[in-house]
Amino acid sequence: MDTHIAATKPAYGELYRLQVRLHRLNHLGNIVSWDRNAMMPPNGNEARAAAEAELGTMIHRLRTDPKLREWLRVAEGEPLDDLERANLREIRRDWREANALPESLVEAKTLAGARCEHAWRTQRKANDWKGFVPNLREVVRLAREEAQFLADDTGLSRYDALVDRFEPGMRSAELDRIFGDLKQWLPGLIQRVLEKQAKEQVAQPAGPFPIARQRALGLELMKLLGFDFEGGRLDESAHPFCGGVPEDIRLTTRYSEDDFTRSLMGTIHETGHASFEQNLRRDWLGQPVAHARSFGIHESQSLSFEMQVARSRTFMDLLSPMLKKAFGDQAAFEPANLHKVLTRVKAGNLIRVAADEVTYPVHVILRYEIERSLVEGEIEVDDIPALWDEKMKSMLNLDTRGNYNDGCMQDVHWSEGLIGYFPSYTLGAMYAAQWFAAIRRATPDLDRRVAAGDLGAAFDWLKANIWTQGSRWETADMVRKASGETLNPAHFRKHLESRYLAS
Amino acid sequence: MDTHIAATKPAYGELYRLQVRLHRLNHLGNIVSWDRNAMMPPNGNEARAAAEAELGTMIHRLRTDPKLREWLRVAEGEPLDDLERANLREIRRDWREANALPESLVEAKTLAGARCEHAWRTQRKANDWKGFVPNLREVVRLAREEAQFLADDTGLSRYDALVDRFEPGMRSAELDRIFGDLKQWLPGLIQRVLEKQAKEQVAQPAGPFPIARQRALGLELMKLLGFDFEGGRLDESAHPFCGGVPEDIRLTTRYSEDDFTRSLMGTIHETGHASFEQNLRRDWLGQPVAHARSFGIHESQSLSFEMQVARSRTFMDLLSPMLKKAFGDQAAFEPANLHKVLTRVKAGNLIRVAADEVTYPVHVILRYEIERSLVEGEIEVDDIPALWDEKMKSMLNLDTRGNYNDGCMQDVHWSEGLIGYFPSYTLGAMYAAQWFAAIRRATPDLDRRVAAGDLGAAFDWLKANIWTQGSRWETADMVRKASGETLNPAHFRKHLESRYLAS
Repeated sequence: MDTHIAATKPAYGELYRLQVRLHRLNHLGNIVSWDRNAMMPPNGNEARAAAEAELGTMIHRLRTDPKLREWLRVAEGEPLDDLERANLREIRRDWREANALPESLVEAKTLAGARCEHAWRTQRKANDWKGFVPNLREVVRLAREEAQFLADDTGLSRYDALVDRFEPGMRSAELDRIFGDLKQWLPGLIQRVLEKQAKEQVAQPAGPFPIARQRALGLELMKLLGFDFEGGRLDESAHPFCGGVPEDIRLTTRYSEDDFTRSLMGTIHETGHASFEQNLRRDWLGQPVAHARSFGIHESQSLSFEMQVARSRTFMDLLSPMLKKAFGDQAAFEPANLHKVLTRVKAGNLIRVAADEVTYPVHVILRYEIERSLVEGEIEVDDIPALWDEKMKSMLNLDTRGNYNDGCMQDVHWSEGLIGYFPSYTLGAMYAAQWFAAIRRATPDLDRRVAAGDLGAAFDWLKANIWTQGSRWETADMVRKASGETLNPAHFRKHLESRYLAS
Repeated sequence: MDTHIAATKPAYGELYRLQVRLHRLNHLGNIVSWDRNAMMPPNGNEARAAAEAELGTMIHRLRTDPKLREWLRVAEGEPLDDLERANLREIRRDWREANALPESLVEAKTLAGARCEHAWRTQRKANDWKGFVPNLREVVRLAREEAQFLADDTGLSRYDALVDRFEPGMRSAELDRIFGDLKQWLPGLIQRVLEKQAKEQVAQPAGPFPIARQRALGLELMKLLGFDFEGGRLDESAHPFCGGVPEDIRLTTRYSEDDFTRSLMGTIHETGHASFEQNLRRDWLGQPVAHARSFGIHESQSLSFEMQVARSRTFMDLLSPMLKKAFGDQAAFEPANLHKVLTRVKAGNLIRVAADEVTYPVHVILRYEIERSLVEGEIEVDDIPALWDEKMKSMLNLDTRGNYNDGCMQDVHWSEGLIGYFPSYTLGAMYAAQWFAAIRRATPDLDRRVAAGDLGAAFDWLKANIWTQGSRWETADMVRKASGETLNPAHFRKHLESRYLAS
């Protein structure tokens, strides 16, 4: 193939080979990053940071090589097939992103983000909003500057330009439509669910749950969910993640003796991410076209596994005997009760990462509205707490006044200058519901199959429509090809209503 | 410091900064190499090999940058202090090594080595010397070519040029002197030890020895031996090694339920290597002058820990209660008996890696004599088996005729083109004996201290004389500064006689 490319499309060939090199260098970066989080002893940190920075510099240099501009121009006129053309589009996207910002801004951003994140660790604990404001203000100032550069480069609005890095093609007009729809019905739905659940009796599983058994159970479930252990492994880290490379996936989880559900559901969640990576097209691996489309689409896989499959009533029939085997027989492990345990909506929860499936979107919409106004210059950092309080009150009926710790200071994202990312979480939840609506149409007896331990129908669909598609299509096109329509929040609504309000 | 260097010694400054970069890139290489051996699932191999090769290419490019020649020339005339001058000497050594061979030869060597090693895996098992000969012949042909390039570059003989890469400054004239001395007395000593031990009663420890307890015991011993777990860790791999980086050492071992002594002594051995790395001068880390002098000196540290300390009669007083605590009380764990177990000389053993301290040098001398003649063109590959048989007969009185598997095909080294390395093992054993002779002179009550768990005197000496000296001096100078004389096999002889023949 390389020979053929070199002869008829030399500029594309150069770009192709550069992507191969980048893939290999990113491989090293991903493995040592996994190692840093899962294996590295504390005193290795300084040397590791220097080594990773060195690699980052080399990768940046390759991505911003001045020769790329000419190669990209010439390649447009070369005889490329559809897949190659899609690949060229993605290579150009990467090039644009790497070259959009002046290096001085990248450095200033990194420095301010690191400083603010460091201060945030103690200031959050101390509920010290006043002390935090100047740190965050500097990060926001630079984020606006960054957004302006990206906006000038793409012709998008400032916030849209930030979102586009995580969700190519997604615009705030579309997010307004989707989140506006959710805001219509979600607060009412949450109230009805809370009222319904308040009347239910739920037996709580009684611990302790030995960690070795939790781990064995997690491995068993990963196997059931199709994880390929010849091409990946499961370890522990303080903050669970799905890392490594498509050819060698490194999942992590975190165990607590008191509660097996977090490690278990966390492991299943990350296995969803892993399945995407393990099923990317092997023949194109290393080229951007083969890799995951967007953060929201990636999250749609983790949430397909966790929310659509593993927290379904049907899945309890599979899970129940496994839990009994692992931890001994308990009434709490009976399928119907277990389902209640795993779909409990927590009234009064202020924390996004602890939120259930039903209230999670509220936490996201709130952040979306605030960060967008912030980047577009409609509000300032000082305005955040009042807006936070107002939105938590109106959507979840919760009082957060004066509670910055569990309020607007709870996430690390803004401290680090990570703005435009929050929407992806809820887009993922909605995509997942839409995929499973399509899967149910194609396989009407899905529940019966899942209860019998046969997840093949769901996996085959995801593999054909999502995993192997990578970045071949723009997101909206891929969503349409997969499910017959663009993103439609009605599927998410139907999913929540049928799981939380039916019967 | 960097500013100062840049102003007064710009060429040296460039070299200095390049070494920093290389140290960082080698960091990545070392961590992913550890990962490959200790963590990586099998299907990660292909992508990992490509990623490591990419890194190797980048490192090679930096080491062979044409600008280096001029920097080295100019730096010689810059106002360097003693340490900087030693550093420059080591930088030049690395540059010379990186540039001595044409790339086509490096590639041919890699390819032939990989092919021969691959064939060796099956041909060794099948005792197929005839099939192996053409593969090894090609490797030897390229090793001779390599040696010729290195000889032309250094003015050394072909074999000396190969040895110099592992033991800078060591020559075969010196090896002949040292090994010639050993050959005078070692075969006779072995016979006397075997006769003495044949009359002894030894109680063998009775297993199984649970792996979790072996691991806990290994960790306890590493702690006793000063391993810094804030800057390193212990894991498992098929072939134990000491990897990682000085700032983050990665030891591995291998457990067998039937025999705790191999994992235990292996862990102690690797902890010796680790202590060297963990105690290199921190302020110069990343510069060649701070790093370990040679393979033999490195081995002298692992053998100081394993042979000089951990297999000593005194150490049994420490080890005995730990074993009883870990595996339950057994007569075999009584200090006097335990010492017999750990110093047993195995009559009839044909395998180098399974050899005890007393017969090990025979295995090395045999290989040294054969590989030197091979590289110098005095013999051909076909001559190896007869020479092997003859030397095993004369030095160990063992018959290896027709047994290629446990004879000249047992090591992987020659298959991979690794020639000139074997002497380092026995040089290490002799250096270790010489260090401990010096330590005993400085601390006459060493045994009493060790028995009380106080290893400080030995560690302080090693730290001051070896670990922190790195590559500051040429080996012979360092040996003299440390022990008052150049390498003297008499210490090794005295050590063996006092341990194996006294009482």
